[in-house]
Amino acid sequence: MTSLAATSKGAATRDAIIERAYEIARFTGLEGLSIGTLAQAVGMSKSGVFAHFGSREDLQRAVLESAATRFGNAVLIPALSEPRGLPRLKAIMRLWFDWGHNQAGSCVLVASVSEYDDRPGPLRDMVMRQEQAWHDALRRAAQQSIDEGHLQPGDVDQYAFELYAIALVVHHKSSLFGEEQSRLRGERAVERWCSAHSA
Amino acid sequence: MTSLAATSKGAATRDAIIERAYEIARFTGLEGLSIGTLAQAVGMSKSGVFAHFGSREDLQRAVLESAATRFGNAVLIPALSEPRGLPRLKAIMRLWFDWGHNQAGSCVLVASVSEYDDRPGPLRDMVMRQEQAWHDALRRAAQQSIDEGHLQPGDVDQYAFELYAIALVVHHKSSLFGEEQSRLRGERAVERWCSAHSA
Repeated sequence: MTSLAATSKGAATRDAIIERAYEIARFTGLEGLSIGTLAQAVGMSKSGVFAHFGSREDLQRAVLESAATRFGNAVLIPALSEPRGLPRLKAIMRLWFDWGHNQAGSCVLVASVSEYDDRPGPLRDMVMRQEQAWHDALRRAAQQSIDEGHLQPGDVDQYAFELYAIALVVHHKSSLFGEEQSRLRGERAVERWCSAHSA
Repeated sequence: MTSLAATSKGAATRDAIIERAYEIARFTGLEGLSIGTLAQAVGMSKSGVFAHFGSREDLQRAVLESAATRFGNAVLIPALSEPRGLPRLKAIMRLWFDWGHNQAGSCVLVASVSEYDDRPGPLRDMVMRQEQAWHDALRRAAQQSIDEGHLQPGDVDQYAFELYAIALVVHHKSSLFGEEQSRLRGERAVERWCSAHSA
């Protein structure tokens, strides 16, 4: 095997391990991941898994990063093809609701906040950066809606906070009271919010 | 000891065990509770704790019930001394934000939803009843605000859903971005929500 082929095979194996770890973490949280059970799940030795991730924390960070990338690909990227302003903002919210809907288990990103908010360290720092980046994306969508004359000028951080609230309650209520009902309430909340603050 | 005194001493011990279990569960969740570690924490034998709770699940249910009682005492009961309508509704929201603020660790009630929403059984049933009861309390406060002429008539289930959203995002953002900032955003969101839907 040339060294290029070896590298590419290594990267593919690493991706496959992250993929499996992500599926497990949807049920156990990132704190529920262990190199041992993951090695079993992918049919490798523990030292084989350790060769790809120096530590359990490295693995957790890789899974968290992968979750954020999936989220961006599922929610933000497709919304960017909608016109700037309210159409894009509403697409973000709709795709965000889909994201919760399409996940077996829980959302790794939401769960990571309660897992790490009281544990200082690199994982908490990463969770904060991810939350901040998503807040900034919502803020930008709100600002564009103002610029396009769709929303009243106002405190866009507040706007982002209120939109986040709606997605969170949809997620919170879904598994107890049915995804369809929660989603409909969420869409109604977005419509009401947009009407209340439309320019 | 008379049998009445024995019963009352038994009840006090039971309460003390629940109190300690509740404090632990704020950090570990209800699923993190074990009779063994709890027995150590209260300085009793495992069989001593088992004498008060037939099983780990009985203990978890007792802790969940106790959390809901505390929540009612901290949020709903004091709000009832405010006049019906928006003053009471706003008091509920304010006291709800305080509740998150005054808890070391996480909110056992919010955490219980993600712990049990995908695990059918008596604990999930109890979580659903508690969530439903709280939704009904919010719904009632919204209906009274309509009856008093403070809010526009509308779908009070939707109103309750949107108010729940605000409390949830305050809770979600608090430990990462500071309780004071999240609380101020939450209060602002409540004010904006009330203005948008005032009669």
